[in-house]
Amino acid sequence: MKFKVQAEMTYTANTAGTLILNINALNNATQSVVAEELRVTPEMDEEELKDIAGENRLIRMQISEPCNIDISYHATVDNGWRLVDMSGIKETPVHQLPPEVLTYLHPSRYCQSDKLFRLAHNMFGDIDNPFVTVINMVEWIYTNIQYLSGSTNSETSAFDTVTEQAGVCRDFAHLGIALCRALTIPARYFTGYAYKLHPADFHACFEAYIGGSWILFDATKLVPLNGMVKLATGRDAADAALANIFGDIIFNTMLVNCTLADDAFKPFYYTSGSLQGISYS
Amino acid sequence: MKFKVQAEMTYTANTAGTLILNINALNNATQSVVAEELRVTPEMDEEELKDIAGENRLIRMQISEPCNIDISYHATVDNGWRLVDMSGIKETPVHQLPPEVLTYLHPSRYCQSDKLFRLAHNMFGDIDNPFVTVINMVEWIYTNIQYLSGSTNSETSAFDTVTEQAGVCRDFAHLGIALCRALTIPARYFTGYAYKLHPADFHACFEAYIGGSWILFDATKLVPLNGMVKLATGRDAADAALANIFGDIIFNTMLVNCTLADDAFKPFYYTSGSLQGISYS
Amino acid sequence: MKFKVQAEMTYTANTAGTLILNINALNNATQSVVAEELRVTPEMDEEELKDIAGENRLIRMQISEPCNIDISYHATVDNGWRLVDMSGIKETPVHQLPPEVLTYLHPSRYCQSDKLFRLAHNMFGDIDNPFVTVINMVEWIYTNIQYLSGSTNSETSAFDTVTEQAGVCRDFAHLGIALCRALTIPARYFTGYAYKLHPADFHACFEAYIGGSWILFDATKLVPLNGMVKLATGRDAADAALANIFGDIIFNTMLVNCTLADDAFKPFYYTSGSLQGISYS
Amino acid sequence: MKFKVQAEMTYTANTAGTLILNINALNNATQSVVAEELRVTPEMDEEELKDIAGENRLIRMQISEPCNIDISYHATVDNGWRLVDMSGIKETPVHQLPPEVLTYLHPSRYCQSDKLFRLAHNMFGDIDNPFVTVINMVEWIYTNIQYLSGSTNSETSAFDTVTEQAGVCRDFAHLGIALCRALTIPARYFTGYAYKLHPADFHACFEAYIGGSWILFDATKLVPLNGMVKLATGRDAADAALANIFGDIIFNTMLVNCTLADDAFKPFYYTSGSLQGISYS
Repeated sequence: MKFKVQAEMTYTANTAGTLILNINALNNATQSVVAEELRVTPEMDEEELKDIAGENRLIRMQISEPCNIDISYHATVDNGWRLVDMSGIKETPVHQLPPEVLTYLHPSRYCQSDKLFRLAHNMFGDIDNPFVTVINMVEWIYTNIQYLSGSTNSETSAFDTVTEQAGVCRDFAHLGIALCRALTIPARYFTGYAYKLHPADFHACFEAYIGGSWILFDATKLVPLNGMVKLATGRDAADAALANIFGDIIFNTMLVNCTLADDAFKPFYYTSGSLQGISYS
Repeated sequence: MKFKVQAEMTYTANTAGTLILNINALNNATQSVVAEELRVTPEMDEEELKDIAGENRLIRMQISEPCNIDISYHATVDNGWRLVDMSGIKETPVHQLPPEVLTYLHPSRYCQSDKLFRLAHNMFGDIDNPFVTVINMVEWIYTNIQYLSGSTNSETSAFDTVTEQAGVCRDFAHLGIALCRALTIPARYFTGYAYKLHPADFHACFEAYIGGSWILFDATKLVPLNGMVKLATGRDAADAALANIFGDIIFNTMLVNCTLADDAFKPFYYTSGSLQGISYS
Repeated sequence: MKFKVQAEMTYTANTAGTLILNINALNNATQSVVAEELRVTPEMDEEELKDIAGENRLIRMQISEPCNIDISYHATVDNGWRLVDMSGIKETPVHQLPPEVLTYLHPSRYCQSDKLFRLAHNMFGDIDNPFVTVINMVEWIYTNIQYLSGSTNSETSAFDTVTEQAGVCRDFAHLGIALCRALTIPARYFTGYAYKLHPADFHACFEAYIGGSWILFDATKLVPLNGMVKLATGRDAADAALANIFGDIIFNTMLVNCTLADDAFKPFYYTSGSLQGISYS
Repeated sequence: MKFKVQAEMTYTANTAGTLILNINALNNATQSVVAEELRVTPEMDEEELKDIAGENRLIRMQISEPCNIDISYHATVDNGWRLVDMSGIKETPVHQLPPEVLTYLHPSRYCQSDKLFRLAHNMFGDIDNPFVTVINMVEWIYTNIQYLSGSTNSETSAFDTVTEQAGVCRDFAHLGIALCRALTIPARYFTGYAYKLHPADFHACFEAYIGGSWILFDATKLVPLNGMVKLATGRDAADAALANIFGDIIFNTMLVNCTLADDAFKPFYYTSGSLQGISYS
């Protein structure tokens, strides 16, 4: 499914510094960037890096003097989503997990799965089909956590959210990830552009490794699951920040957009009893 | 410098499960494993994996039924340490850091550098030579944090330790790492065998990326810096655990040993005013 | 109902200091101390104080030089428990609460009711009869929190326990208190001797102010509710510690005992559907 | 010293409920309310209560139906401050503290002195004159904690602030209290009107019990120490909130004012080397 995505951001650099952005759509075996343009004004030394996980596209910009910075990204992307049959799926034993997946079992800055071990087992520990287990988690998060803009900040973690029960998409994702890992289901953070998100913004959700595939889940239920354009994955928001800023550089404004560039879009959501998972990898 | 290292561990598996050990010495361009033997009793399906960072040697064992497990590792290793001149070194600007180092600037489970930003800047923010800055941190940790066995547990993080001011080697390392990252100095966790550690045990310390090299620091000051045999590096103890256990498998006993297998050993410590760093990479 | 209670404690004072004990049974309109004896060896300057809430009996001892201290307390106490009919009870509006009860609505060191506001409302917020609400809380705590000696320490609070889901009697009490306060039900910490507690020890539970009475609840379900001899109440364990120690004074040993000094004891527990509360005040 | 104080507050009650305000100036042996008027519109059932500590004046209002509420408080108050000679003062041994002061040694919701024990001792533990010790704490807080409106919220505690190093007057006070208690210096929260506070607002600082008097300290250094009109004291902000709201009652606006009603005001601050404490009790 093709989408046009756009991000316009402005910063004021009061000093020299470095800005690392992760707003370029992933371009891999699943998702194709059909066309894209990143314009940075004023011109500066910039380079594209791969992060440690090997896929996320980081743009590192060297800001050599105080200035106002305009960033404009436009792309047309085929997100390449697919449905995966989840019927009859069982938990993958740890000795069968691919080595590169093991890291997504560990606790991380915002997903303290070690601290949620008993809670996760008490609430969701009786696993038959892990897809159903994660769907149950997502329902519990959706029902109990209040989506409340401004209720959390960049320090808020799953350990806070599970009790305080308010947050934004990032917090919903972190909590889902932490609960999965506590049950030995590998899980990772997913950021992207999202079609039909109102107000338009970047979005965060999570992937769990089930039946040999990374399956997407979104406990906010704000958007159709097949309308994402993937930006990055990582252990949590610390790995997959949209921007990492070094120096006295102030974020001013942001405009994000995601529109359909294809024929008829049929929104896909998980529905009760269905065993079709959606994957972007 | 060559050492003989030994680790003997016993576990009781009450169920089937998976055990992932990270007790094999690193074998890379710096450190050479001259000889090694890992014996696992009873015989079981085991394989050696590389973790996401590409160097740590994980042994994954599939335990198919309840049993008592004996693990015995013996190796002779040349640790390949070297001195690095730190005089005249300045902070590396973020735009000059190698991409694979950037991840060690992010907060992680046990190293919440985001929460220590102001504290790190208030205490150590006036950086001329970053090696000297980290030495000052290490002195502050050594002076203020009490080494107290049993005072912390597997959930304790740098955010706790900076205030509670007690801990063990793992906590000392996490605090050093968090302070470095808060100052935009990449830092990572380091585990190893340690010569002259009493009582003998595995040891944890940390590396900071300074002047283009990973330089070793140990805020516990318990052992000479040149007597380590490196096991693993990672973002923190979540990445570099000696053992990850999945299933009802109980840790029983451990014996660790590290003896000299070389001629005269001259212990190396950082001394006041000296600008020689030690590196294992 | 009469009980004989006993507490024997030994301390080693390495320096001069002050020891404040709260092991003397309350003696008020409800509970009568029939006989008691407190012996402290060696002889020292001691006095009995009332704490700020006016009932708890603190024994303050001035230790003027290093010594070994033996404390022996024996008492016969009629605990004066009574049943209170809870049928048809409604929440007391805040404007009808006695002023001295208001303080038990506030968050305290170990009972961060402010942080549990949404969770308490999501789980237990639909209150008809508040006695039934607290019974439901107690069932949830009993079912989900694992009683695990040594799993927590003197810093553990309700905010930790609600997520980590393990603890001892003190932690069970703190969690009950925090949930009550989050729902505007005044609640306080209760310590006492407990008949039929195995192994014998001091016990902690909590009281909620319902229908104009302080009603006792014990989420551990370890002992009959009518077999307590009340020591103290307070906002949480910070107010009602068995011992406050000032100076280098080491706790060595403790022996606690509570035996029946009356005719037939009929153990009382809350049972499903019953609306009889138990009160010690 | 006489001041005119004023507080105007508006609330919207969407439901019936209870509002408890603590905006009436204390009226005790030290501070005299010369004249005062509290007007609440619309008329409602209201009563003045004393809280558990016996001095704070709580106005409890029963709101019986949805309405807009205007509160207007005007008073003329002689604050009765006095200087206390702190030269030659030593720490009061715990066995000499008045019983009603002991509670101010315990940790509380926002002042986790138990968690700051080692830090307080490492930084300030070498006490000769405790007044000088607290002055040193205040200097450290003033120097290291950034006064930053909006950086904290109603859940922020001393344990957070000591590390995150930003906050408002309430946070500065909580940190001072926690450090004092960790050193066995009784300390409590103090709220009041403050002359020369810009922008005008309620203010929070703290009192430490030194040499038999409650001595005032203000780590924000925002106002002269002799220009306060005392509202309340308590263990922390949980005890001494300006408003406790029960029901769906929304705070809208607030106007606070404090002007001189006396002849020449000579601002008093602690100055280096001076050993004059200021007390409002």
